[in-house]
Amino acid sequence: MILHDYLPSGNGYKIRLLCACLGLKPTLKEYDITKGETRTEEFLAISPNGKIPVLELDNGECLSESNAILLYLAEKYESPLLPSKPIEKAAVYKWLFWEQYSHEPNIASPRFWLTHDAMDELKEQMLPNRIKEGNAALKLMNETLELQTFLAGEKITLADICLFAYTHVAEEGGSYDLGQYPNILRWISTIESMDWYVPISQH
Amino acid sequence: MILHDYLPSGNGYKIRLLCACLGLKPTLKEYDITKGETRTEEFLAISPNGKIPVLELDNGECLSESNAILLYLAEKYESPLLPSKPIEKAAVYKWLFWEQYSHEPNIASPRFWLTHDAMDELKEQMLPNRIKEGNAALKLMNETLELQTFLAGEKITLADICLFAYTHVAEEGGSYDLGQYPNILRWISTIESMDWYVPISQH
Repeated sequence: MILHDYLPSGNGYKIRLLCACLGLKPTLKEYDITKGETRTEEFLAISPNGKIPVLELDNGECLSESNAILLYLAEKYESPLLPSKPIEKAAVYKWLFWEQYSHEPNIASPRFWLTHDAMDELKEQMLPNRIKEGNAALKLMNETLELQTFLAGEKITLADICLFAYTHVAEEGGSYDLGQYPNILRWISTIESMDWYVPISQH
Repeated sequence: MILHDYLPSGNGYKIRLLCACLGLKPTLKEYDITKGETRTEEFLAISPNGKIPVLELDNGECLSESNAILLYLAEKYESPLLPSKPIEKAAVYKWLFWEQYSHEPNIASPRFWLTHDAMDELKEQMLPNRIKEGNAALKLMNETLELQTFLAGEKITLADICLFAYTHVAEEGGSYDLGQYPNILRWISTIESMDWYVPISQH
């Protein structure tokens, strides 16, 4: 398998973290998204909307959307990170969709704008509301983690792999203070202590 | 089952459309989100982030996130709308996550703002970029539907149920012209001709 990726990307990191957990070692093909390397004809042929990560399977088929790739790999390798009981599985799905709608635009996007010198007038105007919504998302995670060890219960699941990616670097760019969310900090430490853990920038 | 919902919501409609297709008749409990009915303590107890739809199961457990509910129901009723082959399933997942990140904020949000008198200065500033991204999303769907009958191939899947909901009402509010996307119009007609089809406002 080939993982088409950009190392600072949390969406790509989700896949790298899951692969580490599953003992998989896809070949990494890196693109610098700040230099237009994901806008070439070659890349658009494997990813029509020009986004990383893309997982290229051995038969040449290409999968996109980070959370779809997480589900594909967990199912393919029958990982307990995706529970088999329908109601438990639905809880994992819930967090994966919530991440894309309520977490990523508010936490990952400001981080990218502020660490990649990508602010402009419109983003300046949007930022306060994004940070407000991002803190609401972190509060919801913190309240959930007050009651249980992991997001979907007492066992680690894809929900944790998915949400860990952008949450643990939420402070980059200066928009968030994770010190306000002690249960999130404890959860981050728990994941970082897993024997399969790899940091975001490692390849 | 009880479906906690708001009829004009495309996210709620996805579940109503899937239930119609599966022959399920959940009890509908309606909330007017414009009158704060989803901000009450009672509602927040079943939906911590205050969003509809919520599917309350017969045992009292509550599922949220529309696309997670789609996956739960399709799996529970072993519907062919969710293919069993992993690579085909991954294609459905892809569209479901893409809908939440690249389609819904650009197509559903402007519709809501403009049909619910919810514009403000910030939204006025955000609107042109949302419409640009929304047209990019519609273009991607139109190109896909140039090559195949449904979004994930030749058979209808959850991807179509999911994307149909906000796409077929994209013109409401005046931001989009579906006449530019003939393959989308053909796909809409195909879904509307299904014998289980129900319109968005019907209950």
